[in-house]
Amino acid sequence: MKVRVGFGFDVHALVSGRELWLGGVKLEHEKGLQGHSDADVLLHAVCDALLGAANMRDIGFHFPDTAGEYKNIDSKILLSRTIELVRSKGYELGNMDITVCAERPKLNPHIPAMKKAMAEVMKVDEEDISIKATTTEKLGFTGREEGISAYATVLITKE
Amino acid sequence: MKVRVGFGFDVHALVSGRELWLGGVKLEHEKGLQGHSDADVLLHAVCDALLGAANMRDIGFHFPDTAGEYKNIDSKILLSRTIELVRSKGYELGNMDITVCAERPKLNPHIPAMKKAMAEVMKVDEEDISIKATTTEKLGFTGREEGISAYATVLITKE
Amino acid sequence: MKVRVGFGFDVHALVSGRELWLGGVKLEHEKGLQGHSDADVLLHAVCDALLGAANMRDIGFHFPDTAGEYKNIDSKILLSRTIELVRSKGYELGNMDITVCAERPKLNPHIPAMKKAMAEVMKVDEEDISIKATTTEKLGFTGREEGISAYATVLITKE
Repeated sequence: MKVRVGFGFDVHALVSGRELWLGGVKLEHEKGLQGHSDADVLLHAVCDALLGAANMRDIGFHFPDTAGEYKNIDSKILLSRTIELVRSKGYELGNMDITVCAERPKLNPHIPAMKKAMAEVMKVDEEDISIKATTTEKLGFTGREEGISAYATVLITKE
Repeated sequence: MKVRVGFGFDVHALVSGRELWLGGVKLEHEKGLQGHSDADVLLHAVCDALLGAANMRDIGFHFPDTAGEYKNIDSKILLSRTIELVRSKGYELGNMDITVCAERPKLNPHIPAMKKAMAEVMKVDEEDISIKATTTEKLGFTGREEGISAYATVLITKE
Repeated sequence: MKVRVGFGFDVHALVSGRELWLGGVKLEHEKGLQGHSDADVLLHAVCDALLGAANMRDIGFHFPDTAGEYKNIDSKILLSRTIELVRSKGYELGNMDITVCAERPKLNPHIPAMKKAMAEVMKVDEEDISIKATTTEKLGFTGREEGISAYATVLITKE
């Protein structure tokens, strides 16, 4: 069995007047993430990690933020297309582990819903998707609530 | 053999009047890390990486910082409980690689002691624990010595 | 087959009067990265990830920035020596996935050249080297163009 590792990191700014989407789920919050798509920073980090593991460039290469077709797009569509790209090279998800840095809102209550949404989109087992939340203890741009960042690491396998 | 990957990231603020614990070892420094426990940011990143690899939520889920029992607790106890949780699902440590970002103090002289302490707590071979130190070249909150951050990546395996 | 994971993170400051080297390639830009060597932050993160995976300390341990012999050295030489160290323990590269955070310049056009340069130095297949570029959306020190950061994750294997 061949095993490959991938890693993704993404950041989006928190602004007023936008919805907050994380892990494919809409959260109640007074601000949302700014971006060309729905700016779901968690899913973007996952897409980048999957593409990196398969050596298929990155999310900006496949889904450019200058393309009208991706304006305000649901990032679950990008995730679905990404896993298809990875499978087109003969790989399957091993597991993924994600860390979201956000001072607020509290993410822990929403993690089961995020895992369910992502598992459905990727057609994988929830057991292979881990999502963790942390803060940066009020330090840096995530600590000042200027933005949210996400790290994703994945293993993909080929028989 | 099944292999899974995990990744942890943690940050704690540097403040006066606290001891500095990193990798299970007390370092001499004019400041220490703030937190509910001993705030050993290195061990916290490792716990999160292990829990993420095994898909067992995160350190805040198992050891909430609102619980009196974890007040000023030695994070080696949290690490010991974490590796037990991971083993309860049938996994064993493959290897771990940790990166600590701190402008000061110099960590390199203390890395052998940290590895020894962690290997004893987890009952694993020191060869499977790598610890690296870096700075952010005076940039950002670690560069300004407002805090210390740690990244940990792990592989866990099941026969 | 034994598999081990490694992770590297590095930061260098952007300053006037220096060349900008990334992934072993010189880029046109009005600033460059400050450092004792050529300050190729991408290659440094890769070296640290490789050393971490093999449990062979870190780049600062092997190539100290106080040593005259490394003054302004081409980091491709450090990468070459690093992969030799890893091979001396019987390991071979599985794959690596790198993420560079830089607000500017645009890195995507240069990624094929970087992969080619790195594959030649390490004597590995370009298919096993992934490089991705992202920004931090004008947030933090990379967003303010005070520096560039790079994350690298690697798998190494031994038969």
